[in-house]
Amino acid sequence: MSKYSIGLDFGTNSCRSVIIDISDGRELGTTVFDYPSGELGILTDPSDPNVARQNPQDYIDGLKFVITGSLEEARVNDPEFDANEVIGIGVDTTGSTPVPIDESGTPLALSDKFKNNLNAMVWLWKDHTAHAEAAEITSKAEELRPQYLAKCGGTYSSEWWWSKILHLKRCAPEVFDSAHSFVEHCDYIPALLAGNTDPSSIKRSVCAAGHKAMYSHEWGGLPDKEFLNELDPAFSDLRDRLFSEAFSSEKSAGNLCKEWAQRTGLVEGTPIAVGAFDCHMGAVACGVKEGVLTKILGTSTCDIAVMPNTKALDDVPGVCGIVDGSVLPGHYGIEAGQSAVGDIFLWLVNNLVPDSYGASTDDKFVKMEEMMSESSPGSSGLLALDWNNGNRTILVDVRLSGLLVGQTLQTKAHEIYRAYIEATAFGALTIINRIEEYGVPINEVVTTGGLAVKNDTLMQIYADVLNRPLKVAISDQTCAVGAAMFGASCSGDYQISELQNNCSKVREEIYNPNSDHVAVYKDLYSLYLELHDSFGTGEWQGNLSGVMKKLIGIREAQRS
Amino acid sequence: MSKYSIGLDFGTNSCRSVIIDISDGRELGTTVFDYPSGELGILTDPSDPNVARQNPQDYIDGLKFVITGSLEEARVNDPEFDANEVIGIGVDTTGSTPVPIDESGTPLALSDKFKNNLNAMVWLWKDHTAHAEAAEITSKAEELRPQYLAKCGGTYSSEWWWSKILHLKRCAPEVFDSAHSFVEHCDYIPALLAGNTDPSSIKRSVCAAGHKAMYSHEWGGLPDKEFLNELDPAFSDLRDRLFSEAFSSEKSAGNLCKEWAQRTGLVEGTPIAVGAFDCHMGAVACGVKEGVLTKILGTSTCDIAVMPNTKALDDVPGVCGIVDGSVLPGHYGIEAGQSAVGDIFLWLVNNLVPDSYGASTDDKFVKMEEMMSESSPGSSGLLALDWNNGNRTILVDVRLSGLLVGQTLQTKAHEIYRAYIEATAFGALTIINRIEEYGVPINEVVTTGGLAVKNDTLMQIYADVLNRPLKVAISDQTCAVGAAMFGASCSGDYQISELQNNCSKVREEIYNPNSDHVAVYKDLYSLYLELHDSFGTGEWQGNLSGVMKKLIGIREAQRS
Repeated sequence: MSKYSIGLDFGTNSCRSVIIDISDGRELGTTVFDYPSGELGILTDPSDPNVARQNPQDYIDGLKFVITGSLEEARVNDPEFDANEVIGIGVDTTGSTPVPIDESGTPLALSDKFKNNLNAMVWLWKDHTAHAEAAEITSKAEELRPQYLAKCGGTYSSEWWWSKILHLKRCAPEVFDSAHSFVEHCDYIPALLAGNTDPSSIKRSVCAAGHKAMYSHEWGGLPDKEFLNELDPAFSDLRDRLFSEAFSSEKSAGNLCKEWAQRTGLVEGTPIAVGAFDCHMGAVACGVKEGVLTKILGTSTCDIAVMPNTKALDDVPGVCGIVDGSVLPGHYGIEAGQSAVGDIFLWLVNNLVPDSYGASTDDKFVKMEEMMSESSPGSSGLLALDWNNGNRTILVDVRLSGLLVGQTLQTKAHEIYRAYIEATAFGALTIINRIEEYGVPINEVVTTGGLAVKNDTLMQIYADVLNRPLKVAISDQTCAVGAAMFGASCSGDYQISELQNNCSKVREEIYNPNSDHVAVYKDLYSLYLELHDSFGTGEWQGNLSGVMKKLIGIREAQRS
Repeated sequence: MSKYSIGLDFGTNSCRSVIIDISDGRELGTTVFDYPSGELGILTDPSDPNVARQNPQDYIDGLKFVITGSLEEARVNDPEFDANEVIGIGVDTTGSTPVPIDESGTPLALSDKFKNNLNAMVWLWKDHTAHAEAAEITSKAEELRPQYLAKCGGTYSSEWWWSKILHLKRCAPEVFDSAHSFVEHCDYIPALLAGNTDPSSIKRSVCAAGHKAMYSHEWGGLPDKEFLNELDPAFSDLRDRLFSEAFSSEKSAGNLCKEWAQRTGLVEGTPIAVGAFDCHMGAVACGVKEGVLTKILGTSTCDIAVMPNTKALDDVPGVCGIVDGSVLPGHYGIEAGQSAVGDIFLWLVNNLVPDSYGASTDDKFVKMEEMMSESSPGSSGLLALDWNNGNRTILVDVRLSGLLVGQTLQTKAHEIYRAYIEATAFGALTIINRIEEYGVPINEVVTTGGLAVKNDTLMQIYADVLNRPLKVAISDQTCAVGAAMFGASCSGDYQISELQNNCSKVREEIYNPNSDHVAVYKDLYSLYLELHDSFGTGEWQGNLSGVMKKLIGIREAQRS
């Protein structure tokens, strides 16, 4: 008799669930719920493009909808499926996505007092309002606790836990004062399902705490009170109302409570895995292991690499942290990523591509990809930086912007699209190079996400730029599958390594580098690096007078 | 009884004539002839975007058409008009636009042997095929004859006389060998009208020779044979078949021959002024004088300033030459310009502006200008370099390209359009600053050309960036009017200064700088200069890590 597990994946615009057969990863049922609030689920502020919040009610409504929906679908797809055989629940979410909560663990945003207050909502990962606080935390940690900073890449980000809470304290002190505690989205959902949201007993994710909240066993958990007091006197008290220990996701966060069992049709008492971030669980479903980098290629990207924790590993500057157990048991998890990839292409096609390419967004993409397949690398003479939404790794700087160089009076929209694809690939290569420099080998890349399965042109360009074979995970919802794998693991009967052998599969088609293209991209990448370092770092010295001339030279060589 | 003069203006895509009343500049008749050959009159080569040639037959056909047409129109507009009272003919053309000619002065391209040979055609000013030869001439002159180079701005351009002839010698020796001599377009037309195209007796323009062919009284005319021999052994012989003296345009190049009098209806014997380049004669019709810079604002721009030749004037690096008498008698003429202005806007609107702005090119421009009038300087966070077609002044480098920085995921097409308008204005300011640095005051700017009369938004941005009042010449065809003024002057009865008092008028509306905008543009210009110097010069040292952050800071300040 088969056994099943259910994975719940909370993304930026929607949440979904998937039910897998843990013997082979077969997906029996999937349901998606689009968040109804705001614009595609995001609450924004017209006066400040940095604001990105969410309504926690969307999570609660979605939770019931996707679990019941996927159970129903599983029954339709496989008459032998039995909900009683779902042996575990796993949860992943975006992050760092902190939720201000009251003493009972209820989000402030659900109360009458705060239901219309944007600052009391959930602070979505891509909220960038706290950039000044991030700079301040970086600077104070540099001076007072360099070890905290080294562990999270050398720069503390505006997307992360303490920056957001500090900004909340300053911009909306009445909300901060009303918050008894804060919880990551990925910790809130398991606690809700377990029927115990008491802030002091919520099991916290080491993935979230380690990558975003400066948590480490090395210094006894969260940052010490003296340091937190330097950020804000209220923070040393707050520390007592947060948590002292965090757990990896093969551990259980609790068991399904009666109320949520009745609501969803799952069995009361089903074990629930400690939550983690989406790309970390997705990486496991992609088969992440030593030597393999996994990359979720969507509106933004998230890259995950691992190293056995039996080996010595230096801190890697610029990455989003190195945390023991954040991805695989017994391994350091290394997280990195790009703030915008698919988002850049969407911006381009929706704002700067004339209708001669097609009437709809999709038509335009198809036509542009068709046209660029007839051209060779470098033949447009264009080069771009992929920073339209800042640079997460390796510069950790939201106050950067896009750049395009090499335009003539003949430049076409599809050439610009190609330049942006290449720019995001160069950004991806910069991340890989940085991780390898610090002793973590990356021999192949396994991708997943919308772009990986839909965009052949992009995938070949990535293989050529990265000069590594590119594989594509078999599932269309790897994060949810990864969550389901942890759900199965936290029952105690299965090891993650065993589940990876059974469930983490890739498609047959592999994108292999084309050696002619590799050579051209090597030249273009050296120019990308000049732009990257000159615009992105204060250390670089020189001028860029060779860039345009070399681009013209490459263009001429490629066209002749 | 009124007296009249006729001006003939040969542009890039068409030629035109205008008949003026020399007592007040009133325009009686105008006719335009679109060159029928190639694409908008330009012969191109699909395999090399640098090629831009013209068919000399277009000039000959146009010459008859525009003169007869404008005489007819003058008769219609003013019954008192009498063609016998046209006392002079002036001619301006683009340049450097050399024509390979045989022993009789007939263009090789008109012969059966060469009529289909692109290299035997007229080499239009904007042909950039000779960039390697330009670099070679610059380098040899730097070493052997620095004085030649200093007089033409320190860098010899691919758009100029010797570069083009040297490239012809190398790429098509059979054409070079068949050419007895070469003549500038502006010297060919007066010679043709005078019925004497014998290469040894064609009166050559000091404007063309001085600005483009390294001609100066200081070294006895054209470059010496020893130097020319260094460029190519054939060049020292060629020098004997060119010319030893060049003249300014208040001098006569000859008198209208019987044949062309019969063809056109003008009086045989009418004096014809020595030719000059379009923007030089246009400057005179705009009222150029000490302290006033004139700017022809079209697909590209041409800037002209003057200084009395009684004052000492240092060589100005980066300008297109300083030539005594090239604009006004008794004055040094200083030419400068931008390789693409309106051409950049046309490229943008035709390639990167979606139909949501409008169905036609004009509709899109109108809508974008309307939308940008609601925004303030710097509020988009964008900054561009205006080098899509290289940089003529002050860098004299065709191997440069466009650049746009500051894009986010919200950037709109009309914001990019504004950034490009601003970039061309910053390029214009860079030229003015360079000229002023060398002691030539620029207190106001008089503009003419399509953009000056059609684009209010652009004109206000230019006034704000240049921080000077901007005036617009009254005529829509200032170059032809300027040519007519020289036609009148070469009769010997009128001084140019007197004709300027009568005919060089500006419109009532003046664009005055807005002080709030001036302050923002000062900040943006300092960032433009960083990009300009880092990408455009080998000397600059530093990094550009402040640029994106300052642009974001300005954007935030302007939006709040």
